[in-house]
Amino acid sequence: MSEQLIADTVTAIAATSQRAVAAAEARQASLTKPAGSLGLLERIGIQLAGIARVCPPPVPERAVVGVFAGDHGVCAQGVTPWPQEVTVAMLLNMAAGGAAINVLAAQAGAEVVVTDVGVKLDYPPTDGVRGRNVARGTRDLSVEAAMTRDEAIAALAVGIDTANEALDGGAQVLLTGEMGIGNTTASSALIAAITGAGVAAVTGRGTGIDNEALAGKIAVIERALALHRPDPSDPVGVLAAVGGLEQAAIAGFILGAAARRVPVILDGVIACASACIAVSLAPEARGYLIAGHAGAEPGITEALSWLGLDALVDLGLRLGEGTGAALALPMVQASARILRDMATFDDANISAG
Amino acid sequence: MSEQLIADTVTAIAATSQRAVAAAEARQASLTKPAGSLGLLERIGIQLAGIARVCPPPVPERAVVGVFAGDHGVCAQGVTPWPQEVTVAMLLNMAAGGAAINVLAAQAGAEVVVTDVGVKLDYPPTDGVRGRNVARGTRDLSVEAAMTRDEAIAALAVGIDTANEALDGGAQVLLTGEMGIGNTTASSALIAAITGAGVAAVTGRGTGIDNEALAGKIAVIERALALHRPDPSDPVGVLAAVGGLEQAAIAGFILGAAARRVPVILDGVIACASACIAVSLAPEARGYLIAGHAGAEPGITEALSWLGLDALVDLGLRLGEGTGAALALPMVQASARILRDMATFDDANISAG
Repeated sequence: MSEQLIADTVTAIAATSQRAVAAAEARQASLTKPAGSLGLLERIGIQLAGIARVCPPPVPERAVVGVFAGDHGVCAQGVTPWPQEVTVAMLLNMAAGGAAINVLAAQAGAEVVVTDVGVKLDYPPTDGVRGRNVARGTRDLSVEAAMTRDEAIAALAVGIDTANEALDGGAQVLLTGEMGIGNTTASSALIAAITGAGVAAVTGRGTGIDNEALAGKIAVIERALALHRPDPSDPVGVLAAVGGLEQAAIAGFILGAAARRVPVILDGVIACASACIAVSLAPEARGYLIAGHAGAEPGITEALSWLGLDALVDLGLRLGEGTGAALALPMVQASARILRDMATFDDANISAG
Repeated sequence: MSEQLIADTVTAIAATSQRAVAAAEARQASLTKPAGSLGLLERIGIQLAGIARVCPPPVPERAVVGVFAGDHGVCAQGVTPWPQEVTVAMLLNMAAGGAAINVLAAQAGAEVVVTDVGVKLDYPPTDGVRGRNVARGTRDLSVEAAMTRDEAIAALAVGIDTANEALDGGAQVLLTGEMGIGNTTASSALIAAITGAGVAAVTGRGTGIDNEALAGKIAVIERALALHRPDPSDPVGVLAAVGGLEQAAIAGFILGAAARRVPVILDGVIACASACIAVSLAPEARGYLIAGHAGAEPGITEALSWLGLDALVDLGLRLGEGTGAALALPMVQASARILRDMATFDDANISAG
């Protein structure tokens, strides 16, 4: 059933409208500003027109941040100084509204939806956590496959369902978020496997490790890739071998949005890894992606280059959760407002220089 | 009278509170995120605490963009392809709500206040333009002083008055904006004069000129600096020699905010040039400045380095008007919200990794 949902979703993902893109390009040139002077904001506006298939595109006011939490067996290799208990503690913190993503989403007027797709440890039943646990964490990707293929598929389906629920509730733009101690390790492995980049070039310090620990993290990922030899033409296989449950869910979340013709704002390296999987499954999904945050994590740079995206925000964030996406949301909304609300040179009786 | 207002304002500018800064640093370390993981957002929050002299600082909800319009005699040297008529046309466009700054301010929930401090050409009386014209444009800075000293002082006072009016009206943060064909030329001249950087290193293409025109623009500024030999220890003299009426007003606007202990978000190269003047007049004003936008204009990089600021937004904007500052506003608000609203590790029962 999950497999069918994924297949149907992928099939529903169509190219964005070149006609609306051309109309938006023409409109940008007619507005009272020198051509191109709003930089990336102009290009995002044009993209939104292509996604909405109309110019000007609607301003995506109603936003949902889908936060997916999961644990990682690879923590056994010492890739992070944080204990796995922190995944649960932060899940509960998010459910209670105390995490950075809650604060930044509130500032941006976005709703946060928290889903347990793969948390390992027990926690009391909690309002504000959608219980969709597919597995109690992944296995250690450096010694065996992180997930079975069925687990990866089930987690992808959780993400698609989450997107559909948000969109049924009126969301006009989706933002990706996550929580999972150890999840930059799985993300770097996914990015290396999909893009073909070297492990050292896509592996960073996560939320904070020293040089020695970084070398160890790189060695763990290299060992995993040598063990599994993941095939980039089989993205579900890549996910199962070296991914995480939350990366699978985010990939599904992206596919769900693209199938319903809604833009998705990516957060940091975990989102970028998930986007590489989503685009490998459905190349046209790429047109629905907006990069929220460039980052300290080198995997972001590599993945965004592979995806062909430029990021809106670059504040040196290395937190994840969806924080970079939430900070980018007002800019995405602004880019649509520009096309809708600015006067044209004709309106203002100005001849272009 | 203007001279007295400036002197009183400069005298009122006090250092930000190191005690509140220390409290904010301690609070950042206690919040549920790895230390430093919100990057520049953490540093801005700490700065806001220092400015407000309390931690957490209030979230600066009420924002006013002060847009100052002026013309430039140096346009006679062909430094820009745009005719001076565009200054008036855009002034009226802003008053009517059709310019980019109107749209971006609306997105950010900020009010736009448009002031004619030095427009050259006639226009019909217009609601939404504060008429505070000090001179009908500057003179050609490449052949004579752009302003008299009295004109520069009067324009500085217009900026201070504008800040005071906004703050009396309840503004909690001020954003700088401007309109003036040719004003990147005056800005590069100001930045070179104050920072000592070479002209070529601080001169860019403004809203769009080719290589040949850029070389001409650099030559014009070099000629002006050789003619006036402006003395950086006399910032009003620098302003009079090679500045603009809107740069003077923005410098006053910054001083007015700092004197009332309110943060100022700078826009692009014109704001950066004005900030160099303001900080030269009152070194403690530096602590109240937040850099909105890094930019295509090389003068921004040089000025921000001299000011010791890192910019929040870098979208390749080259429009001015206050657009970069407006895009940065939600981030500034977010940085204060983080300190106010996030849970601590103690709240969430997490021990730091």
